[in-house]
Amino acid sequence: MKILILHGPNLNLLGTREPEVYGSTKLHELNESLIALGKEFNAEVTCLQSNHEGALIDALHEARTQANGVVFNPGGYTHTSVALRDAISAIQIPVIEVHISNVHAREEFRHKSMISAVCKGTVTGFGLKSYELGLRGLIDIIRS
Amino acid sequence: MKILILHGPNLNLLGTREPEVYGSTKLHELNESLIALGKEFNAEVTCLQSNHEGALIDALHEARTQANGVVFNPGGYTHTSVALRDAISAIQIPVIEVHISNVHAREEFRHKSMISAVCKGTVTGFGLKSYELGLRGLIDIIRS
Amino acid sequence: MKILILHGPNLNLLGTREPEVYGSTKLHELNESLIALGKEFNAEVTCLQSNHEGALIDALHEARTQANGVVFNPGGYTHTSVALRDAISAIQIPVIEVHISNVHAREEFRHKSMISAVCKGTVTGFGLKSYELGLRGLIDIIRS
Amino acid sequence: MKILILHGPNLNLLGTREPEVYGSTKLHELNESLIALGKEFNAEVTCLQSNHEGALIDALHEARTQANGVVFNPGGYTHTSVALRDAISAIQIPVIEVHISNVHAREEFRHKSMISAVCKGTVTGFGLKSYELGLRGLIDIIRS
Amino acid sequence: MKILILHGPNLNLLGTREPEVYGSTKLHELNESLIALGKEFNAEVTCLQSNHEGALIDALHEARTQANGVVFNPGGYTHTSVALRDAISAIQIPVIEVHISNVHAREEFRHKSMISAVCKGTVTGFGLKSYELGLRGLIDIIRS
Amino acid sequence: MKILILHGPNLNLLGTREPEVYGSTKLHELNESLIALGKEFNAEVTCLQSNHEGALIDALHEARTQANGVVFNPGGYTHTSVALRDAISAIQIPVIEVHISNVHAREEFRHKSMISAVCKGTVTGFGLKSYELGLRGLIDIIRS
Amino acid sequence: MKILILHGPNLNLLGTREPEVYGSTKLHELNESLIALGKEFNAEVTCLQSNHEGALIDALHEARTQANGVVFNPGGYTHTSVALRDAISAIQIPVIEVHISNVHAREEFRHKSMISAVCKGTVTGFGLKSYELGLRGLIDIIRS
Amino acid sequence: MKILILHGPNLNLLGTREPEVYGSTKLHELNESLIALGKEFNAEVTCLQSNHEGALIDALHEARTQANGVVFNPGGYTHTSVALRDAISAIQIPVIEVHISNVHAREEFRHKSMISAVCKGTVTGFGLKSYELGLRGLIDIIRS
Amino acid sequence: MKILILHGPNLNLLGTREPEVYGSTKLHELNESLIALGKEFNAEVTCLQSNHEGALIDALHEARTQANGVVFNPGGYTHTSVALRDAISAIQIPVIEVHISNVHAREEFRHKSMISAVCKGTVTGFGLKSYELGLRGLIDIIRS
Amino acid sequence: MKILILHGPNLNLLGTREPEVYGSTKLHELNESLIALGKEFNAEVTCLQSNHEGALIDALHEARTQANGVVFNPGGYTHTSVALRDAISAIQIPVIEVHISNVHAREEFRHKSMISAVCKGTVTGFGLKSYELGLRGLIDIIRS
Amino acid sequence: MKILILHGPNLNLLGTREPEVYGSTKLHELNESLIALGKEFNAEVTCLQSNHEGALIDALHEARTQANGVVFNPGGYTHTSVALRDAISAIQIPVIEVHISNVHAREEFRHKSMISAVCKGTVTGFGLKSYELGLRGLIDIIRS
Amino acid sequence: MKILILHGPNLNLLGTREPEVYGSTKLHELNESLIALGKEFNAEVTCLQSNHEGALIDALHEARTQANGVVFNPGGYTHTSVALRDAISAIQIPVIEVHISNVHAREEFRHKSMISAVCKGTVTGFGLKSYELGLRGLIDIIRS
Repeated sequence: MKILILHGPNLNLLGTREPEVYGSTKLHELNESLIALGKEFNAEVTCLQSNHEGALIDALHEARTQANGVVFNPGGYTHTSVALRDAISAIQIPVIEVHISNVHAREEFRHKSMISAVCKGTVTGFGLKSYELGLRGLIDIIRS
Repeated sequence: MKILILHGPNLNLLGTREPEVYGSTKLHELNESLIALGKEFNAEVTCLQSNHEGALIDALHEARTQANGVVFNPGGYTHTSVALRDAISAIQIPVIEVHISNVHAREEFRHKSMISAVCKGTVTGFGLKSYELGLRGLIDIIRS
Repeated sequence: MKILILHGPNLNLLGTREPEVYGSTKLHELNESLIALGKEFNAEVTCLQSNHEGALIDALHEARTQANGVVFNPGGYTHTSVALRDAISAIQIPVIEVHISNVHAREEFRHKSMISAVCKGTVTGFGLKSYELGLRGLIDIIRS
Repeated sequence: MKILILHGPNLNLLGTREPEVYGSTKLHELNESLIALGKEFNAEVTCLQSNHEGALIDALHEARTQANGVVFNPGGYTHTSVALRDAISAIQIPVIEVHISNVHAREEFRHKSMISAVCKGTVTGFGLKSYELGLRGLIDIIRS
Repeated sequence: MKILILHGPNLNLLGTREPEVYGSTKLHELNESLIALGKEFNAEVTCLQSNHEGALIDALHEARTQANGVVFNPGGYTHTSVALRDAISAIQIPVIEVHISNVHAREEFRHKSMISAVCKGTVTGFGLKSYELGLRGLIDIIRS
Repeated sequence: MKILILHGPNLNLLGTREPEVYGSTKLHELNESLIALGKEFNAEVTCLQSNHEGALIDALHEARTQANGVVFNPGGYTHTSVALRDAISAIQIPVIEVHISNVHAREEFRHKSMISAVCKGTVTGFGLKSYELGLRGLIDIIRS
Repeated sequence: MKILILHGPNLNLLGTREPEVYGSTKLHELNESLIALGKEFNAEVTCLQSNHEGALIDALHEARTQANGVVFNPGGYTHTSVALRDAISAIQIPVIEVHISNVHAREEFRHKSMISAVCKGTVTGFGLKSYELGLRGLIDIIRS
Repeated sequence: MKILILHGPNLNLLGTREPEVYGSTKLHELNESLIALGKEFNAEVTCLQSNHEGALIDALHEARTQANGVVFNPGGYTHTSVALRDAISAIQIPVIEVHISNVHAREEFRHKSMISAVCKGTVTGFGLKSYELGLRGLIDIIRS
Repeated sequence: MKILILHGPNLNLLGTREPEVYGSTKLHELNESLIALGKEFNAEVTCLQSNHEGALIDALHEARTQANGVVFNPGGYTHTSVALRDAISAIQIPVIEVHISNVHAREEFRHKSMISAVCKGTVTGFGLKSYELGLRGLIDIIRS
Repeated sequence: MKILILHGPNLNLLGTREPEVYGSTKLHELNESLIALGKEFNAEVTCLQSNHEGALIDALHEARTQANGVVFNPGGYTHTSVALRDAISAIQIPVIEVHISNVHAREEFRHKSMISAVCKGTVTGFGLKSYELGLRGLIDIIRS
Repeated sequence: MKILILHGPNLNLLGTREPEVYGSTKLHELNESLIALGKEFNAEVTCLQSNHEGALIDALHEARTQANGVVFNPGGYTHTSVALRDAISAIQIPVIEVHISNVHAREEFRHKSMISAVCKGTVTGFGLKSYELGLRGLIDIIRS
Repeated sequence: MKILILHGPNLNLLGTREPEVYGSTKLHELNESLIALGKEFNAEVTCLQSNHEGALIDALHEARTQANGVVFNPGGYTHTSVALRDAISAIQIPVIEVHISNVHAREEFRHKSMISAVCKGTVTGFGLKSYELGLRGLIDIIRS
């Protein structure tokens, strides 16, 4: 089983950006822990981050034939991107939407997601733990 | 560690209501599996279902002194209940919101939650698995 | 054939509350006339009123196995209750929504019903006669 | 007692248009059954259909002196016509609004009626049976 | 100078419809007084009423070559008709919008006019006197 | 008969402000022509202009006992002033709202008037002629 | 004179819930001080709290024949409950709406009350003092 | 193959109305060029214009059995007519919506079409060329 | 202790304006009764009324150093004035908002207050008694 | 004559993505047919696809000096991109907007286009044929 | 060159009102620094503050003939005043809108300005420095 | 001191795109003048333009450690980009938003900025001068 962890805009700053909110774990450390968790389930996890909406679409397209599922944190594109929504619809594999912070407790414009409706499931607000829960849920879906 | 699993309106019909959507697992079966999972983490899980908004508020109040956290599926009250929101705010323990189906892929009025902003985290759309992921996340939060 | 007549909040005051609007017929008198009408069609009619949203949900759930259809006046819950909507969706039997007054000629917030979309039919504005018309229509649907 | 059954736009296609939705009964067959039902109550029923908003207004005006009440299916004009609303307000006789399908379970724009507020009552969603229920209710109103 | 007085839907009932609101003057009496007023200014006034939106459009088109201006009471079409708006835009002559009652003191949906923006001027709420004021204003515009 | 012509904010610039829109007639010239017109009807016309909302309220209050009616151009306060609306409601004499330009053909925020609903009538878009028509209509109302 | 003090959802936690916001006075202490104040005015005050919307409706119904007025803090039901609004309309006695905190300074959804329009008066934001002021105002209304 | 070209309100003025916008080609010249184009594809083209919404509905109904498809410019009815939408839904043949001007570059209220969702395709903004492109597209659909 | 009673626009007409709504008590009589009530609490009450938004702002500014609190009826400026809101925020002393009538039972635009969020408390709908209750509440706040 | 065919996000998957909706024609096959059609009109057609909004802007900028017009399917960027709108405004050459599916029959958020207002024309819903019609229309515009 | 610095409501409190937000510089100190800056550019700067909307309008009118441009901080009138907008439109000289705080980071109702559209430029959020930047920009505009 | 001037989409066309609106100065000329101005203040100014949202995010991230502040014209991304907003929040250095044209005097969708709330200040409408004023303001902020 192959799984893509896809990080959207600004997540490259993880651990340096507002550590009181996002913690001090760096992105590569998060990725490593997810790769390790994947191994427990015999899942090969690869990770990718980009600030470019187009690059995220490209990655989803490639996952279509290269992976069994995607754990996706679309960052700020969550609330506006029809193009990412279409990309998720276009590939047949399950996609899980995750968010580190509780977006529903933040500004009004963060309450609406363009992405959720075409994802299998959503995990929000558990900090970095959101990724782990999303990964567990995704593996469960792929197996069933 | 003590945890309350709280089920809102119509969830007593689980397994008999639209099984093609919600599966054929009965509510008591779901509860048993969650109790079992809790045991793995030395967490004592108790479960409660009610169709009455007031009874759900009462249960949250009682959990304030009787539990370390709550996994809550507010069902149809998700989208309208200020009183449940206030109850969650009023108790100090962490509450996780879970939904079986992907509410974001359903009717417009299901896209807004009155509850999410005062919960620690939200898990949506993984079927009954949403409860398990929510329980795992909650245990993690209580421990940290 | 068994039919439930279900009355929502404040209908217990029928005949005493604003009689110039709702007339002076008491709730039990209305129920008796509906039971009598049911007999003409060999339908066993039972009646229930509650001011509790949860109790109305419970009654709908029970009707699922105990009745062939429901005539339902959701009163003030008409405009806000997702939980009642879900209860109606969850039971397989036909439900008819009735209103005594013409809700469309009253305040703006009474123009939207959360219930109508999941009911088979709606009868509004005929005074107590709305129940009779709803009952006739329901019997017709059950027979066909 | 004289009653006008007034059919709005596209109802001339009844029985030929989407029979899986509207059934295979033709408009003239529906009219005949309503005329027969009227006779049971000593009510002389006449029927008229037009696709022209202006012709429907003319018919309502004529009913003002020629009929004791109207059963009206305004079709697609239901949701937009202030002119028909004004026509109903302008004539003193009671008007009943009927719809074959459950408009509340269809597109958003069909949920609002410009007509309901000035009608005595509304019957929606019972198929062709909506007309019969509306006619019964109207006769009851005229008699009282 | 030739002027068309154009009356929209339901105005044929003037004098018979809600006389406490609209007074007891009949439409033909109103027309006669406007024709007489026109004569004082050497203006030939002709009058036309229709309940048909299409007939009103036809009349405006004809006025394009047959009249120097129009005093128009669009009745219930005021609030919804893009087609009438386009007709007024399409003809080069000035059009005055008049209303008998104060539409701004009535239902919310009567506060917006689709027509006003393409008319030269609007007179509202003076009772039948609105026509006279509109006619005076129109003659003044044509002359200047 | 005594009549107050009340001019709201910026109308003191009449004749100097955007003459291609508002013409080159000065405010005092307009006032003189209205006073002259009043004389034809034995009406004593006085005129007042202020840029201060409070001063306009004061003037309306004083007109309550000093005049039989008011012709009022509320200028930019038209669209926002609840206080002016209340002042018009509070005095018993009829008030006519007039506008020089066609406000409905300008920005969206000019389409709503807070004032119209409590005025007897409205005249809009006839240039300075709007005042004359409003004055004629007001005299007619006072006389009847 | 008999008066009901009715407390809505979550008010049972008064004094324990967010004391920095709501103070440390317990509900029974508040009730005692209101009973004492009532005695000064020869008013017999009884107090009731429930988290159940239906129980609050029941209490209002019973007050209809058992009390001369109600001081009501509807808590979270303030913003959504048409059923409570209808209950207040249905009973003839005056009802005063009170709120401890300044709801207008909190979330947007707390700015709208479904209840205020059918209450005699509203007191908001004075802390527990809101009850005392509401009680004084109610006694004044009952006496006049 | 038989095709109906259906022109809505105000299109009879084509060539005389605002020629700087709509060009100087008359409606009959446009029709002739479309008939000629049809011949190239062995399609018998007939053309009809009406300012009456009802007449357009009648024409669509007749096309149901008399034509293989329709090219329809609904003019001002585009933005408001549920009745025309229903007529298009009711007939089984494909309908193409065309507009001469770019409606999306005009007033806000022209941006929404009630018709587009039930048409096969839409062509907008190419001037009279829109008809030709729509006709080509329609023939292609009928053939496939 | 010094307290300012500040009356907004149109309140100078108190007792003469719509006495069936506002009663026949004159403004100076109300002021006298409030001054007398103040004396009972050793509070020096001064009163001021203006129809000018700017004068009300000036008065609030002056109260900043001259008074310990303000009871303010902003009248029609309640619903629109950001400037008054800013003035209340800018001065450190507590301000109480009072309304004579129940603004929530009147027009939609009166339901929103720009002022409430920056006031300590609000009293609405008790008639002139609203001032007394507001004054009592203010004194209580100043003392605590 | 040189023409750019510009394909937005996800169109690289054409023929593999949801073939029941978009057909099985591959993007390069579509491009070839368009190049061939161009040759019939002596137009040199070049084709470009990108998932990157910025790359599409770059391409439009380059077309400004390298092409006579553009046929553009903006895909998911249609509904949100002000930047693409500005790019189209900034270049002088005509741009045609095309869509394969009928966007008006899909989700609400697809009904609004940020692009249409600055394009010359729009072709929607004809499947791949939309491109051909758009290309024909563009060539016509360039020639005239 | 003559320039008016115009300060709207509450700015007289500058330096005393919320110094942690607005700093401790007094209004007259700000004015002096702006006068000094003006001198560097040979511009005669005069300053005026008023809490009265009408006085601000008067000042703008006077600036029309007495100044070459205005730097204007409309304070709380920014978001509501059509009358001030009209005054700015009515005078021919350039007006610059300045705000001390970042209004876009404050309450929703402060995000919309009624004034910006008719000003030449806007400077927001630089503290008192906003005035200096606005003054520099204005001088540049007057010179060019 | 190091400062980044960041230009968003379409600004590479400066001087060639709509010169009547944006002037004929080329982007490199603007940059040179800003570099020169920076030198006067001992600030090292570097400039970057991109049409790619992702590249702009990358540049902001890099500025986080390489610059003391940013002057940013987000172009068309201003109104929609949550990702850019998040990037500005994520870096600690001050960012100034500038616009060449007065966006508030253009289309409705340009009135809302997603960026302003997280920027220190905004300068709008001064033509290219906006950059200079923004740069001056930024230097002032960095120094203080």
